Amino acid sequence: MTSTVRKIHRLQGSEAQMIDDHLAAEEPLEIRLIYGTKAQPVKKNLAVTMRTPVNDEELAVGFIFTEGIINEYTDIEEVVELKENVIQITIKEGIDLDLGKLERNFYTTSSCGVCGKASIEAIHTECTLYDKEKPFTISPSLIYKLPDKLRAHQATFQNTGGIHATALFDLEGNILMVREDVGRHNAFDKMVGAALKENLLPLNQHIVLLSGRTSFELVQKAAMSGVKMLAAVGAPSSLAVETADEFGMTLIGFLKQDRLNIYSSKERVL
Amino acid sequence: MTSTVRKIHRLQGSEAQMIDDHLAAEEPLEIRLIYGTKAQPVKKNLAVTMRTPVNDEELAVGFIFTEGIINEYTDIEEVVELKENVIQITIKEGIDLDLGKLERNFYTTSSCGVCGKASIEAIHTECTLYDKEKPFTISPSLIYKLPDKLRAHQATFQNTGGIHATALFDLEGNILMVREDVGRHNAFDKMVGAALKENLLPLNQHIVLLSGRTSFELVQKAAMSGVKMLAAVGAPSSLAVETADEFGMTLIGFLKQDRLNIYSSKERVL
Repeated sequence: MTSTVRKIHRLQGSEAQMIDDHLAAEEPLEIRLIYGTKAQPVKKNLAVTMRTPVNDEELAVGFIFTEGIINEYTDIEEVVELKENVIQITIKEGIDLDLGKLERNFYTTSSCGVCGKASIEAIHTECTLYDKEKPFTISPSLIYKLPDKLRAHQATFQNTGGIHATALFDLEGNILMVREDVGRHNAFDKMVGAALKENLLPLNQHIVLLSGRTSFELVQKAAMSGVKMLAAVGAPSSLAVETADEFGMTLIGFLKQDRLNIYSSKERVL
Repeated sequence: MTSTVRKIHRLQGSEAQMIDDHLAAEEPLEIRLIYGTKAQPVKKNLAVTMRTPVNDEELAVGFIFTEGIINEYTDIEEVVELKENVIQITIKEGIDLDLGKLERNFYTTSSCGVCGKASIEAIHTECTLYDKEKPFTISPSLIYKLPDKLRAHQATFQNTGGIHATALFDLEGNILMVREDVGRHNAFDKMVGAALKENLLPLNQHIVLLSGRTSFELVQKAAMSGVKMLAAVGAPSSLAVETADEFGMTLIGFLKQDRLNIYSSKERVL
């Protein structure tokens, strides 16, 4: 369910009317983790995130991947919806989790991911996907077309005006998938979760498009997923640009039909 | 520092030029808490949030207030900037903190605040500011003018296009303060922290205006601060509307110069 309908009052000047309005759906999702051995399983309540209730399993899988808790989809034994708004992921016996990272999740916040300069270096070191680079270049004319392609797929935004999207494109500009959420970090994690399941990672032969602004956290999640070209309709933050620089990721912002800004690694735009 | 300048490449069609671009500043802020007695202080790393580095003390104070950790500004002994990007708040000896809530902060996330239906009820019960209501009504023509007043004060957005604002107005539509941040929950907490310091709470004889969309978390923070009228330029989520309903808060969305939507408690708009 991506939207709900509600009767509201719309004022235009001093005229009021009652209309049906579509609202972007927002509900809490709890992500639980089971790891350790079958004889001695360890259960952990990992996170609660406010999300739009669609693609929950992808969200949970994407979240534990971009947080660095798992490295591959095959680390997962099982993903189940325990009950409404609760997803439980069981890790395969014998997979060695970074428990420090599990603790850190309780300390940092889901809207910031792994925080701080020291952590930027940590991601860099950790991110094994990062090195498997196959160079590519993309023409501006192809990039200019991406937002319209995304909008054509973004049904919920058209209804509600209140939802973010992350789209995955191949290097020819074909749209591979779109994921939506009230939280932009969740939309990103849903896309990564789906891509991980389809064995598409590292996403270094792809373009990822964000419908909104680019924060540090989104660049961090992109780096964890091997993304080399991240484009956004909105503005990037200072730390988003610094982090993209650090990872040699091409970061594009303010993408319109005939203009764009390149903030880092411009060599991939021909 | 609310923005940084960087040389970037701007493409218009196939023409490239190098320009100076202003980026909304984003850096991690760590919030530390000291409570207990002077003889036996307890130190806790409470949260790390990615924020725009201005009004840090207000942000930290607003955060611990809207999270329900303190009830009044006078609960605080001292707020100090320990070093760059670290704020430490010492709670007065003898103040009884809700330690369960401290733990919960490590479990929930800063972008969702207190999560879930059960918690909505908890906020309702807890929120002592909620009952001190003095009824008021506002004309639509006054409300229509608020976004322009906010924009006139929002210097950083004009430069960067990448920052959220929260503005506090009195019931005559006079702007009392504006706070900005890359995170909308931080902009809100900065406003609340400043208002708390100025002894303005509960904010039930005020209008709060958000530059973006309204999530559950923002309504929760508004409820904790006694806000009875919350207006936003963007769309609300489903849970934002449900929560406003629960608190009898007037929630306005899609606020333009001559139109607006009322999602709950329309009796305050005359």
